[in-house]
Amino acid sequence: MIEDSQNINDRLAKFRTPESVILGDSADVYFHRTIEILKKERLNPVAVMEAFPNGSGIICGLDETLALLERVLPKDNREVWALSDGDTVASKEVALRTKAPYQSFGLYETAILGFLASGTGWATAARECLQAAGDIPCISFGARHVHPFVSGRMDYAAFVGGCSGCSSVEGARLADIEPSGTMPHALIIVMGDTVKATLAFDKYIDPSVARVSLVDTFKDEAEESLRVADALGEKLKAVRLDTPVERGRVTAELVKEVRARLDQAGHPGVGVFVSGGITPERIKYFIDRGAPVTGFGIGSYISGAKPIDYTADLHEIDGKPIAKRGRIPGLTANPRLKRVL
Amino acid sequence: MIEDSQNINDRLAKFRTPESVILGDSADVYFHRTIEILKKERLNPVAVMEAFPNGSGIICGLDETLALLERVLPKDNREVWALSDGDTVASKEVALRTKAPYQSFGLYETAILGFLASGTGWATAARECLQAAGDIPCISFGARHVHPFVSGRMDYAAFVGGCSGCSSVEGARLADIEPSGTMPHALIIVMGDTVKATLAFDKYIDPSVARVSLVDTFKDEAEESLRVADALGEKLKAVRLDTPVERGRVTAELVKEVRARLDQAGHPGVGVFVSGGITPERIKYFIDRGAPVTGFGIGSYISGAKPIDYTADLHEIDGKPIAKRGRIPGLTANPRLKRVL
Amino acid sequence: MIEDSQNINDRLAKFRTPESVILGDSADVYFHRTIEILKKERLNPVAVMEAFPNGSGIICGLDETLALLERVLPKDNREVWALSDGDTVASKEVALRTKAPYQSFGLYETAILGFLASGTGWATAARECLQAAGDIPCISFGARHVHPFVSGRMDYAAFVGGCSGCSSVEGARLADIEPSGTMPHALIIVMGDTVKATLAFDKYIDPSVARVSLVDTFKDEAEESLRVADALGEKLKAVRLDTPVERGRVTAELVKEVRARLDQAGHPGVGVFVSGGITPERIKYFIDRGAPVTGFGIGSYISGAKPIDYTADLHEIDGKPIAKRGRIPGLTANPRLKRVL
Amino acid sequence: MIEDSQNINDRLAKFRTPESVILGDSADVYFHRTIEILKKERLNPVAVMEAFPNGSGIICGLDETLALLERVLPKDNREVWALSDGDTVASKEVALRTKAPYQSFGLYETAILGFLASGTGWATAARECLQAAGDIPCISFGARHVHPFVSGRMDYAAFVGGCSGCSSVEGARLADIEPSGTMPHALIIVMGDTVKATLAFDKYIDPSVARVSLVDTFKDEAEESLRVADALGEKLKAVRLDTPVERGRVTAELVKEVRARLDQAGHPGVGVFVSGGITPERIKYFIDRGAPVTGFGIGSYISGAKPIDYTADLHEIDGKPIAKRGRIPGLTANPRLKRVL
Amino acid sequence: MIEDSQNINDRLAKFRTPESVILGDSADVYFHRTIEILKKERLNPVAVMEAFPNGSGIICGLDETLALLERVLPKDNREVWALSDGDTVASKEVALRTKAPYQSFGLYETAILGFLASGTGWATAARECLQAAGDIPCISFGARHVHPFVSGRMDYAAFVGGCSGCSSVEGARLADIEPSGTMPHALIIVMGDTVKATLAFDKYIDPSVARVSLVDTFKDEAEESLRVADALGEKLKAVRLDTPVERGRVTAELVKEVRARLDQAGHPGVGVFVSGGITPERIKYFIDRGAPVTGFGIGSYISGAKPIDYTADLHEIDGKPIAKRGRIPGLTANPRLKRVL
Amino acid sequence: MIEDSQNINDRLAKFRTPESVILGDSADVYFHRTIEILKKERLNPVAVMEAFPNGSGIICGLDETLALLERVLPKDNREVWALSDGDTVASKEVALRTKAPYQSFGLYETAILGFLASGTGWATAARECLQAAGDIPCISFGARHVHPFVSGRMDYAAFVGGCSGCSSVEGARLADIEPSGTMPHALIIVMGDTVKATLAFDKYIDPSVARVSLVDTFKDEAEESLRVADALGEKLKAVRLDTPVERGRVTAELVKEVRARLDQAGHPGVGVFVSGGITPERIKYFIDRGAPVTGFGIGSYISGAKPIDYTADLHEIDGKPIAKRGRIPGLTANPRLKRVL
Repeated sequence: MIEDSQNINDRLAKFRTPESVILGDSADVYFHRTIEILKKERLNPVAVMEAFPNGSGIICGLDETLALLERVLPKDNREVWALSDGDTVASKEVALRTKAPYQSFGLYETAILGFLASGTGWATAARECLQAAGDIPCISFGARHVHPFVSGRMDYAAFVGGCSGCSSVEGARLADIEPSGTMPHALIIVMGDTVKATLAFDKYIDPSVARVSLVDTFKDEAEESLRVADALGEKLKAVRLDTPVERGRVTAELVKEVRARLDQAGHPGVGVFVSGGITPERIKYFIDRGAPVTGFGIGSYISGAKPIDYTADLHEIDGKPIAKRGRIPGLTANPRLKRVL
Repeated sequence: MIEDSQNINDRLAKFRTPESVILGDSADVYFHRTIEILKKERLNPVAVMEAFPNGSGIICGLDETLALLERVLPKDNREVWALSDGDTVASKEVALRTKAPYQSFGLYETAILGFLASGTGWATAARECLQAAGDIPCISFGARHVHPFVSGRMDYAAFVGGCSGCSSVEGARLADIEPSGTMPHALIIVMGDTVKATLAFDKYIDPSVARVSLVDTFKDEAEESLRVADALGEKLKAVRLDTPVERGRVTAELVKEVRARLDQAGHPGVGVFVSGGITPERIKYFIDRGAPVTGFGIGSYISGAKPIDYTADLHEIDGKPIAKRGRIPGLTANPRLKRVL
Repeated sequence: MIEDSQNINDRLAKFRTPESVILGDSADVYFHRTIEILKKERLNPVAVMEAFPNGSGIICGLDETLALLERVLPKDNREVWALSDGDTVASKEVALRTKAPYQSFGLYETAILGFLASGTGWATAARECLQAAGDIPCISFGARHVHPFVSGRMDYAAFVGGCSGCSSVEGARLADIEPSGTMPHALIIVMGDTVKATLAFDKYIDPSVARVSLVDTFKDEAEESLRVADALGEKLKAVRLDTPVERGRVTAELVKEVRARLDQAGHPGVGVFVSGGITPERIKYFIDRGAPVTGFGIGSYISGAKPIDYTADLHEIDGKPIAKRGRIPGLTANPRLKRVL
Repeated sequence: MIEDSQNINDRLAKFRTPESVILGDSADVYFHRTIEILKKERLNPVAVMEAFPNGSGIICGLDETLALLERVLPKDNREVWALSDGDTVASKEVALRTKAPYQSFGLYETAILGFLASGTGWATAARECLQAAGDIPCISFGARHVHPFVSGRMDYAAFVGGCSGCSSVEGARLADIEPSGTMPHALIIVMGDTVKATLAFDKYIDPSVARVSLVDTFKDEAEESLRVADALGEKLKAVRLDTPVERGRVTAELVKEVRARLDQAGHPGVGVFVSGGITPERIKYFIDRGAPVTGFGIGSYISGAKPIDYTADLHEIDGKPIAKRGRIPGLTANPRLKRVL
Repeated sequence: MIEDSQNINDRLAKFRTPESVILGDSADVYFHRTIEILKKERLNPVAVMEAFPNGSGIICGLDETLALLERVLPKDNREVWALSDGDTVASKEVALRTKAPYQSFGLYETAILGFLASGTGWATAARECLQAAGDIPCISFGARHVHPFVSGRMDYAAFVGGCSGCSSVEGARLADIEPSGTMPHALIIVMGDTVKATLAFDKYIDPSVARVSLVDTFKDEAEESLRVADALGEKLKAVRLDTPVERGRVTAELVKEVRARLDQAGHPGVGVFVSGGITPERIKYFIDRGAPVTGFGIGSYISGAKPIDYTADLHEIDGKPIAKRGRIPGLTANPRLKRVL
Repeated sequence: MIEDSQNINDRLAKFRTPESVILGDSADVYFHRTIEILKKERLNPVAVMEAFPNGSGIICGLDETLALLERVLPKDNREVWALSDGDTVASKEVALRTKAPYQSFGLYETAILGFLASGTGWATAARECLQAAGDIPCISFGARHVHPFVSGRMDYAAFVGGCSGCSSVEGARLADIEPSGTMPHALIIVMGDTVKATLAFDKYIDPSVARVSLVDTFKDEAEESLRVADALGEKLKAVRLDTPVERGRVTAELVKEVRARLDQAGHPGVGVFVSGGITPERIKYFIDRGAPVTGFGIGSYISGAKPIDYTADLHEIDGKPIAKRGRIPGLTANPRLKRVL
């Protein structure tokens, strides 16, 4: 039973494959040559290709892949089985099975593996942060650490992995949420003072956007926190600590002290948001020491996550089991796969 | 003295920035808000932004960055100083200095850092392989392990780092070389036999493309090597060993044995190309054991290299030194920078 | 109550001590001198010697020792207490107590300790393999890694430690079993083809000997396995994988693939026997990864096991407790000892 | 040019192969079956077998091997090339090449590899001790830690590796030296006092045997050393320290103190011989701390050395290069080999 | 409710602060300057100082501190809260809170922290030994390893940490116990023989002092133990093993052997006391191996324990919460504190 | 030739031994008993005691020891040989040899070893800091981490080890220098503002005392540094960074930034003094990163240094060589010793 095609088309619309991918610009050149040879040999058997990751994690990139397959596979001679974005996937578990005339999809092996490797790498890293953070929300802040062509994809995968927000405009659009963010050091430096910058932010920016002030630019964080809290009062949702490594990074004790001083000054409602080199280990450190963090901004732990490489193998040609050395011929059983195309 | 503008425009043409980046889709949302606030405050000071990496390596991504800056900075009020793609760069060394009205470039901090982080990460990993390999050429084979939107960029950076070839069509176009590649297991599986596939390749593919046969699909590598060498004779440039981990990967001893058996069978001119999990350590292993490899295919060591994160800071506003805590106000001296725009 | 002497004589018969040992050829020269001195001093007190291992394990070598003591101790003035071959023994636990006139046994301290040290070392290593292998039978294949004078003793100790078979003729005779083995690479190389060699084996060798074909000599193991299985049909008991380290050793995935391909080809009854560098860790690796191995051939892990050294001390002279520094005078209590002579 | 046959026959005489080895008792059973098959198939090609170690060291066991080959190979159709006992051998270096009709030697592969593995293991361990000890002589004392059937072979190999003496009677006979040794604790315990035992030794034992007294049996070593030195005077060649681990083993400081006290008491000519758990590391420890040791007794470091396994491969059948997978067909060049038979 | 002042005065009497401390000789000079400035500025606010350790352990030094504070704080304007000597204290837990006019105590911050750091370091190390030793008594023997000005303080802290005795006269006085000790090697060397020295000890020293003989001076410990036990009979309470490292230190086996030989010789009532490099690990070693030790002498493990540094901070000035960066203003809650002054 | 007695008496005067030490309060009780026994036995031989450290370093405590020996040894029957405070001393090297009637000094073994152990431990740690710091001066700031009875001794030893200053009044008196120090956080907290406190310091404290302001109490260090530099102008000698661990400790980057900002603000003459957890590794860290530190304050690295234990042995009694087991009888040659008494 295939998923309802209208539903799936709606879901895949936002991942429309660019023409350059359709043309094979991103493909390994030997696939172009393979198709050329097979065409001249008039060989176009129905082939079954299975793809599996070389590590476990949270899968992402399947919808991007399906958007491509939907477009290139012949509608009357195709069968695609897959897991869903956001599912856990075990190492070596078949996550995608494509059955169609080989010439229709052979060129896209490179792109398909790339979608899955990148997406799964990012989503898995995000999940690791979430598991460390428990109830504390995590926001993906790593757009600046990846190539802008994929920053939206990265943020989307972070969302699939469990992040409750992301900073890039495109990532938010793919995830169908509002982008998150506070303010850059640049705004404060241009305006010359944190309080002044925060008041300007409050004056011009849509009230639906949370007021979060970045308090480590010019002064000691505790001192600046009190200044902005006094200036904005109840409108201040949180202060953000992003102390640079040159100043010893954010410590659990700093969070506790800022919290205590805010409370003593009558600002119990102002949260403390922490960013800068956040990893699952760092999250655990803050939690183990009882630091009352109200949110984490995650940068390169997610954006710089190593892709989880996928392998694709042909397991059947015109109905006959086959495989290269090291693989077992024939379809690999996986009851978790659902027919999607 | 600025570089000749015609020259640079020619060089940057291939890195034309997509409209979505110009529109700020890949930007962190807080930069959109910053620009909005500054516009309403009518603040548009000339600002100096400096960017440096948090690790050393081979820089790449500068040309992509300059293509963007060339387009957005006002031509009569800009000054851009930079290193060049392919230069070594030290940790914390300023690699790019931009001086212009802040509103003209503030939105692009995210994209600029992303260009540089990704490119430098890939180019640096490639260089590490090259340093291990010495005279033996290395080809970038990792397109399948990254998102197809950046596989060309990755292959280009690998080329900048020293690879002599790459497999993706787009990467080769950016590097202005012919794409490299042998044949996929899929071709052999579809055709059912390695010798048959190799003969078909030889029959149809342009003679300018080197004949390299992949010999681990169905039979023992040594046996298959002799079969294809006997079939193609002098036209065979090399065999490619890509033994899967399930069969113990390629070993130095396998390379030596294949070499010896090819020589004994009268095929001294056939090279032995090795791929599969190649890293600088693995390259060193082959060389230390005297394995006569004639080329390496590098996959995820380059494509999965962690980006080398960059940081951008404002150091001057309207001619006055300034900086956030942890940075030193004013321009950072770096005589290696050249004026490019 | 001493064990029935007829029984024990039967049991010890196969370990008849060679004359060279009786003459003291293998003894440390200082024992010859000690006996010479004591004879001239006319000192021949009844002495109690206790021997214990400097490590724990499975004891072996006691029957060899008793065969010697039975021959040299005066029948009317001797008392020997011991554990039994195959018993566990703790570090420092007294495993043998000999009470007799000192001149009758003093010369044999070297030989007795040597019997026990070698035997216990081999039997203990065998037991470690068995504990890792659970129900999967292990065969001792290490005769080639020890001096031929003791290869039978080694195989016997492996049997005492739990191996279900061994390859040497003499080891099998001592253990009262049929020797085990498949075929050497030499047979296949001399005959030029694995299938041909296997068919010849089947033609000439007594049908009671299991047909096990060695499948890594010339071709890929999976390919060769199918060839011999097709050639011998149901007579083939197993294939043996012995992939050399130059080809990446036998991997768990190879075992699984050969199993799957044999099953797919209609040979579910053909087992997969694995050899080559097998250790308890390697056995565990195969089992943990679910490789369906039907037997292991163990070589140097058993044959190269370090002897577990024994120490012998005099604890009583003419009924008076005595000991050297570092030992406690008098008999050491050990209720597990049984009177054997 | 073959070595003079009279010479070699004299040299090999002492290694006469026992009948049980000739009969193949120590052989793997599959070699018996192989010979049976080949006889029935009337296949007896001239084969070249090469043997190499899987580790580097000092080779021993070649003379034992040649004694066997001399007896079984047809004198008119044989060619044996080898290194010599005592030579260094590199890992994987061919140490023995045998060319003869296969049926004449196939059965002895097990024994040949066993001779070489054991001998090379022991000789290599001895050499390691010697390299640490420099000019200080080392005596092999490990007969008690190996099976008495091979204790002579072990002591011979220790001599080949560089030991200047050994304790077993048979080892000394093979090495053509006098056996070395002091006295056992047993003699002292039976006689009840170290001085009394030492005087008895001096009274009865041939004057050509060095007087070395074991001084740790009943009293503090320094105290006992002075007692025996005072009792024997200049006839005492050395005291032997063999402090048990229960008393903290021999320390460098103990050696220095005993030396100083002997000197202060007028016994500068009495040496200090050390035994008990001696390894190259322990030898280095004594030397680094300036302990004036005059000789070391080495036990299980040599006797318990793991055999250095050898591999034998057929490389030529009736003049045609051949080899199993993982090996290179044809003779392996090694200019160090000399023709011996 | 303050503790009864008579009680506390009695308790503190033995810790009377020397005049040099009252005069500030041991103070950091900047506190002298601080008091000078504040006097000239006529600033003498009531200040609250809190002190906490930078590590967990057993607190000691509080009574010394209170003796100082009792003397310098104005009786009508002071409030002191503290834990008690011997309490456990957690890292960062406030252990002492002093509220009084700042000029009355500011000069003594150095001394107070020093009392607590030293005392807590020693008491904590003692407790670690006690926890390892269980029921076996431990005696502090480390006076020789610290400056004589503080050896009494060290021994007192060891007693507070759980030692049942100590060797220094002053330490015993502070702890209100009899000093413990056996005899030095010097006595034995001066008298020339261990038995002679032990008999002299027994002849002249008050019978209330236990007779414990040091048995490693001239002879083997087991031999000497039997000699002194035979000489003193039932009057001998224990032998003390203090084997120097040059003789391999005391081993568990030595203790067991001495015990066995004493028992065999009819001296079951003579204990075995062990000293020399004793640490919690060494105590555990003896216990794990079943060595029947009846007492441990602990030296530099306690006396050389690193002080557990304390930090003192002002948290309130004239009733207003205040603190330096990194600390939280206002009193730190700790319900375990009791009002003592 | 003995050192001139007037000179030495002057030098030792400041180390006058307290009566409690003379009375043996700090002695192990067994020395009291030893003296009692020897008196009753009328044994008072001239004995030679040698003391050596169990580790290498910089010796300190000898002058304190000599002050004691000068007082207790009979002037007409004594001979004392020693190294000098500040000398290097090797492990096990005899540093002090005392020859006199045993009853005159036996009681003081405990105190003598304590003087030397403590002093050598502290001086050695100081030297390690100095070796790391090169030309940058180090000040001993650890008085607060040791018992006040020895804080002066500790500071004196730090001076002997190479520190150019110390904070305790008594330490400075022993070293014959002015005490060093800046100001405590307490002064700033009591006065409420760093600039205010610094101005008050400048107003009241003798001009000969350097003005060094502590800048981490309330505000960011860089901000506060500029405030105090602007307030005091050229009178400010240095700022002191003592950032607590809760704020990430002092980093090399902070030092560089404070330096740059002071320079940019026209205060190139103001130094940057660093304290807080300073160790040789931390000093190396600052220097390796090019941080322009002008002085280090060292606390617990010196004050908490483990004593380097000394051992004292009798080597001669009435002119006859003697020693306990493990030592060599008679005087130990050491040409570095000089006769001092």
